[in-house]
Amino acid sequence: MAEALKIGIAGLGTVGQAVAKQLLSGEVDTRLQLVCVTAKQQARQRAIDLSSVTWLDDPLAMAQADIDVVLELIGGADGVALELTQAALKAGKHVITANKAMLATHGTQLASLAEKQKLNLAYEAAVAGGIPVIKTLREGLAGNKIERICGILNGTCNFILSEMQASAMQSKGASFDDTLAKAQTLGYAESDPTFDISGVDAAQKLAILSSLAFGVKPDFTQVQTSGIGGISADDIQFSDEFNCVIRLIGLATRTDDGILQWVGTCLIRKGTPLAAIENVTNGILIDADMVGQIMLQGPGAGGAATASAVLADLYDLLANRGQGQTRAPMPIFGRAAEQLVPPSSKIALPASQWYLRLALVDAPGSLAKVTAILAENGVSIEEIIQHKSTDNQPDEAARPVIFITHSVLPQAIASASKQLQATELINKVIDAEICAMPILDNM
Amino acid sequence: MAEALKIGIAGLGTVGQAVAKQLLSGEVDTRLQLVCVTAKQQARQRAIDLSSVTWLDDPLAMAQADIDVVLELIGGADGVALELTQAALKAGKHVITANKAMLATHGTQLASLAEKQKLNLAYEAAVAGGIPVIKTLREGLAGNKIERICGILNGTCNFILSEMQASAMQSKGASFDDTLAKAQTLGYAESDPTFDISGVDAAQKLAILSSLAFGVKPDFTQVQTSGIGGISADDIQFSDEFNCVIRLIGLATRTDDGILQWVGTCLIRKGTPLAAIENVTNGILIDADMVGQIMLQGPGAGGAATASAVLADLYDLLANRGQGQTRAPMPIFGRAAEQLVPPSSKIALPASQWYLRLALVDAPGSLAKVTAILAENGVSIEEIIQHKSTDNQPDEAARPVIFITHSVLPQAIASASKQLQATELINKVIDAEICAMPILDNM
Repeated sequence: MAEALKIGIAGLGTVGQAVAKQLLSGEVDTRLQLVCVTAKQQARQRAIDLSSVTWLDDPLAMAQADIDVVLELIGGADGVALELTQAALKAGKHVITANKAMLATHGTQLASLAEKQKLNLAYEAAVAGGIPVIKTLREGLAGNKIERICGILNGTCNFILSEMQASAMQSKGASFDDTLAKAQTLGYAESDPTFDISGVDAAQKLAILSSLAFGVKPDFTQVQTSGIGGISADDIQFSDEFNCVIRLIGLATRTDDGILQWVGTCLIRKGTPLAAIENVTNGILIDADMVGQIMLQGPGAGGAATASAVLADLYDLLANRGQGQTRAPMPIFGRAAEQLVPPSSKIALPASQWYLRLALVDAPGSLAKVTAILAENGVSIEEIIQHKSTDNQPDEAARPVIFITHSVLPQAIASASKQLQATELINKVIDAEICAMPILDNM
Repeated sequence: MAEALKIGIAGLGTVGQAVAKQLLSGEVDTRLQLVCVTAKQQARQRAIDLSSVTWLDDPLAMAQADIDVVLELIGGADGVALELTQAALKAGKHVITANKAMLATHGTQLASLAEKQKLNLAYEAAVAGGIPVIKTLREGLAGNKIERICGILNGTCNFILSEMQASAMQSKGASFDDTLAKAQTLGYAESDPTFDISGVDAAQKLAILSSLAFGVKPDFTQVQTSGIGGISADDIQFSDEFNCVIRLIGLATRTDDGILQWVGTCLIRKGTPLAAIENVTNGILIDADMVGQIMLQGPGAGGAATASAVLADLYDLLANRGQGQTRAPMPIFGRAAEQLVPPSSKIALPASQWYLRLALVDAPGSLAKVTAILAENGVSIEEIIQHKSTDNQPDEAARPVIFITHSVLPQAIASASKQLQATELINKVIDAEICAMPILDNM
């Protein structure tokens, strides 16, 4: 029982440093022993004293070190992170990782390797920071059939959207670009924010959750993904008039045709659980046959919060060692890697109402022509709103017109949008001349 | 690995039946084998076919049956539930229980027995139904120091309070009694609702969470407990004017003097996470040093939801058997039973603003006399409201007067209330002539 778990940390960014700090604090189980670390630059000034720990210049040398578990906190889908993970598993070491990109790209292959080696590949920190959503899906709801996962998985996007909402409520109507700049100033967005605002980060997290919940191979390229770049202050304002907020949602659900995996902006009703998730907080709704619906919310990022998840994985490893003998870990994604089935990116969202904003050219008959095109494509209109824009319009002749449709399949919206785009009815000068978002219920 | 986990179910109420149904459904791990059941009346009509399972007339005989684990779903702090739990542990059987009353009364002694026997005593179902809060505290936040637990732990009370709130918003102002009757009609409250509305149910759950989080012996008699019985439609209405809602909150937190354990009604600000928990839903906020704040919410009761938690404990047992050998379980309340320290009921709430409603006799000078008594006790007033009551007052001469105090210790409120009660200023005809509730921030 008193046997130590010898630990190596690869990567000393925010999370790596927070984990090292905790392991060296004297406040953790004494069996958790940090033995070695590796990072790009040894010379770099850090807030922690690593003098008691072996420094490895070569990250891959960690796979051969006298340790039990490698904490892969380097990041990136490929490169050193992947090489080290593979080498460590091959050398008989458990791996704990916070690397969503790697798991959402090479997860099946890595799970297969870990299972073959009877080792654990743990990844609580890879999704939603400190929220124990992996453990909840895998163990807490073990007796359930999961029906749906629906989450706010990217704190940067949620900050921008809820900040734009707050600004609109004060009649300021901050633009997307200004709000992004504010997020960058506050440290909530990277200097290159592409990865977050494109929805890719959320898609990688969703792919991992979806694998665990539904037994599909984790593969973010099969998640239908769009980001928040096209959202204007008008969209926030108009959504509010429909008693909705805009959120970037990751949705994975069973359908008759297979597992739908979707990330995109949508309108959700105020007063629903996910609408209440503000700022950088993450929130994950889980629907399952026995439990009904539960929601987990908390910090989706940050050094200490993510380190909390890494620590939980370490304590699990410790517990599983039991009386000197490590038990065979559970399959990495809830079932054996070879039983995971390929996901499909062709599963469509179910029919729903849609929000459609067009930058309509201010010319006689243009509205009639638009409604005709919508009708041709089977898109029927419940409501039209047109009033003065809150944005500074580069072209004063263009005014946003909002259509709220009756329930319709996304394919109809796509074909109507394509057809509209090809006409002279839409002002092409301004960005995001057509913005189409589903209005999703039960969020 | 293919070794079965042989299961006995004691108690076939809502939860017991839901567990049995799931175990017999063919949809669970084939190693989970229901072998025997026991309940009060074999003859009773049930929705499940138990013909494949051995029926035991004597519940205590289950301790001697050829099974690995007893699911104690009988309930009650003492009696058969306790006898069976003890007998099963002594006979080398794991126990999984949903019995909060038993754990909050005899938890330390049972944990000690389980640890001595190297057996598991699992109780995810005992707190907050299907929400995996035990697993989250024990494993998901294993690296954290828990600072505070704050929860809506009783669905019956939360239904009544949020229903009264909804009624007040429609200017109907339903009374406590009418709303309780509605809850009973809907099956959300027992015909004798004492256990729920007195706060005892919430106190038992809080004692268990608090033990796990802070290492105190689980003992609900040491939780300062009050219920929702004194809440009037006026209170709901007035709270709303302060942008607050009333909730029955269970609060356990570290203080300089020890662990505060408190259950009572209080005002919490709208827009905070717990204020958003409506109807029978439970919600638990956890503050911890590394993760910051997370919240779990979901169904706190119901057969299937609670059965989900029992199933999770079964799957954990299954996983822990590993390669044929059961590993030593973790200590039942997070640390060895002998290390648990006695809780104290003497730790006071920290200073906060208070809401004070007095049924003031409508006589000249009475308000001046009340404020003098408050001042004598060090209670200073931020705001006074007095307007027409929404309740049907038995005595038209009495009008509720609301005081919102500046930040003050609860002792000051208690002594002022006691002194006021002894005067002729308070109308004694109506119920709950003084209603005092803290206004708690950061909920």
